[in-house]
This record gives sequence, structure tokens and C-alpha cells, in this order.
Amino acid sequence: MTLAESRPQPCGPARGRPRSEAVERAILEGAMRLLEEGVPLSELSIERIARTAGVGKATIYRRWSGKEELFVDVMRAAEPPDPELPGTSMRDDLVVLLESLRQRGLVNRSSAILHNVQAQMKSSPKLWAAYHAMVITPRRNLSLEVLRRGQRNGELRTDVDIELANDMFVGPMLVRSVMRPDVDLPGELSEQIVDTVLEGLRPVSSPET
Amino acid sequence: MTLAESRPQPCGPARGRPRSEAVERAILEGAMRLLEEGVPLSELSIERIARTAGVGKATIYRRWSGKEELFVDVMRAAEPPDPELPGTSMRDDLVVLLESLRQRGLVNRSSAILHNVQAQMKSSPKLWAAYHAMVITPRRNLSLEVLRRGQRNGELRTDVDIELANDMFVGPMLVRSVMRPDVDLPGELSEQIVDTVLEGLRPVSSPET
Repeated sequence: MTLAESRPQPCGPARGRPRSEAVERAILEGAMRLLEEGVPLSELSIERIARTAGVGKATIYRRWSGKEELFVDVMRAAEPPDPELPGTSMRDDLVVLLESLRQRGLVNRSSAILHNVQAQMKSSPKLWAAYHAMVITPRRNLSLEVLRRGQRNGELRTDVDIELANDMFVGPMLVRSVMRPDVDLPGELSEQIVDTVLEGLRPVSSPET
Repeated sequence: MTLAESRPQPCGPARGRPRSEAVERAILEGAMRLLEEGVPLSELSIERIARTAGVGKATIYRRWSGKEELFVDVMRAAEPPDPELPGTSMRDDLVVLLESLRQRGLVNRSSAILHNVQAQMKSSPKLWAAYHAMVITPRRNLSLEVLRRGQRNGELRTDVDIELANDMFVGPMLVRSVMRPDVDLPGELSEQIVDTVLEGLRPVSSPET
């Protein structure tokens, strides 16, 4: 009892946390506001963001080690959060993962700013590397984990390289959502992709062959 | 005989053609040289390209309706040419199509300029639309044609949407070559993708199930 009481309360607010969160939000929103006003990423300095958010530069540097890390958080705040996996089967988890890619694609399409910023981000190797390390790689590791579990459960062929399997599930959704902004992303697409990739595209052979 | 003679010779050089081709090449190379020097696409005016190539602006406008069309041709000249399809089977044609995507990915990786210009191109909606219409859509139509032939030949399931089937073959290669510049593009990848997408990722069920 005394031990438990002496521990910091896990649910109670840490000292100064709400204020700190408000500052963080103000900084992220300030950066987003500048992007919405059409300021290109390359002209978006820490100084300018600090001025817009009404904080000092030091306040930003205390939270982010540099421009890249800050921008990745700006992007992340604008995107839908990563999904909770049901864990009922590999198939269901994959549908949820693809569904979150689809949602992200829809948000990206509806927001011209987000779309434009992502394109700018890709032309900055440093920024793109940071986004990769902080956002894309963790997502990818999550889906590789789902596939490994599927191999252990007998839901996925074990003779196929797991990276290839992942690209086979994720690739068709990414191609549509990122590279082909003109085509539909219908609600049933995630299930269709997962089930058809599992099934294969060869016609079911007739009994005599 | 007289009729044939009166026709323009199909193989003979059209009047002024070689000179015209040399001019075209000089213009495309001039644009590429400026890009190699690090001039951003947005600053690459027709005027500047004309000066570099040693021609008048009118010479460029006689051949291209605008900056967008010219840039798409610059990109196209730097990329490997579109492949010849063997036509022996859907499977073989798809392997060749994916192989050409792989080759394009390799060229793109080895050329920092090409990579950078493609990224810049994507952040210009007008330029990206032109590249799409002139390069990507024709390629896509070619592969849809291959798939339709496969459905007629019994090589491809007919109950799957042809656009989805195309994304399933092309997606995994594009995801690797365009979005994940850090991973390998091994020589056997094209065959692996085509055969595994045809086969499916579900484990082969045992006879009693």
C-alpha cells in the first residue's frame, strides 16, 4: 500500500503536463497554419514557427531536436491515428491495416495541403528519411509481425519471403491511394485485396487437370 | 510502279528530318544538363533551355506545346524504353512488364538527378498530370490489355476486377522500386511477384480439408 502510494500516480497528471501539451499543440498548429497559407516547407524555419505559435525558439528545441522531427510530428498530427488490431486472425488484422491505409489515402486526397506537403517532403532526403524512420518503418514492422503470426498459425504460406508477402498485401492499396489519386477507394477494397491476395489470381483448376 | 514511286519513300529520310532530330536531341540534352547542374524544375524556363541548347524559343514551341510536354519528353529520354512483349502467355508478358518497372527503378536509384526531378515533378500538379497522360496511362493500358487477354485464355480469374488484378501485379514492384529506395530489387523479383500473385498466399490445403 505504502509502496503503491509512493509511486507516481499513473493516471494523475504529471506536473505541468497539460500546459506543456497545450504548448506542443500550439506549435504543431502554428506550423500547419503556415503550410495552409502556402508557405513552402523549405521556407518554414523554426524561427517562423516559433513566432506564429507565440513561443521562443528554445521552447521548440526543447521538444524537437530539429526541423525534421518537428515536421514529421506536424504530418502525423494531420493524419488519422494508427489502428488498433483486433488480433482475431491474420486476415482480420490485415484488413484493419489496409483499411487504415485507405483512410489515410482519403484524408490525403481531401486535403490539398497535406498532399502538397507530402510531395515536398519527398523531395527533401533528410525529411523523408525522418518520416520513414518515425512513421513508415514502425507501421511496416507492425504488419510484418502480423504476417509472422499468420505463418505460425497456418494462415500464410511459409515458403514465401515475408517482405514479399507484405508488399503483396500493402502494394495494391498504396498504389491506388498514393500513386493514383484519380481512382476510387471504395469501402470494400481492403477486404477485397486481402482475400484476393490470399486466394491468388489463377483460375481454379478443373478436377481433371 | 508509278503509283509506288509517287508515294513518299517510307524508309528514306524525310526532308530535313535528321537535322530536326539533332535539334530535338540538343534541346532535351540542354534541359537535362540544366537539371544536372541542380537548377530546380520551377526555375527551368523555356527561355533558359533555348539558350543552353543554342536555339530560339520559337524552335522549342514548334515542337512542344509547353513546358510540361517538353519536361515529360526529357524524363522519357532519361528512362529505359518501353519493353517489347513476347506475347507467348499472359504470365510471360507480365514478367516482362514488371521487369521493365524494375529496370526503371534501378535507373532511378542510380541517378540522383532523375530521382530528384521525379519528386519535383510530383509536386507540380500540371506536370504530373502531363506525365501521367503521356507515360503512365499508356503503360497501364498495355498491362490491362495483357490481363484481358489472360482472362480470355483462361490464365486469369474472370471474377476479379481487372483494375484490382493489375494493381496486385504492379503494386508490389512499384512499392519496392518507388517507395522503398533502400531495399533490393533482385533479378528474380519480377517472376516471383507474378507467380506468387497467381498462386496466392494461402497455404495449400491438405486433401482432407
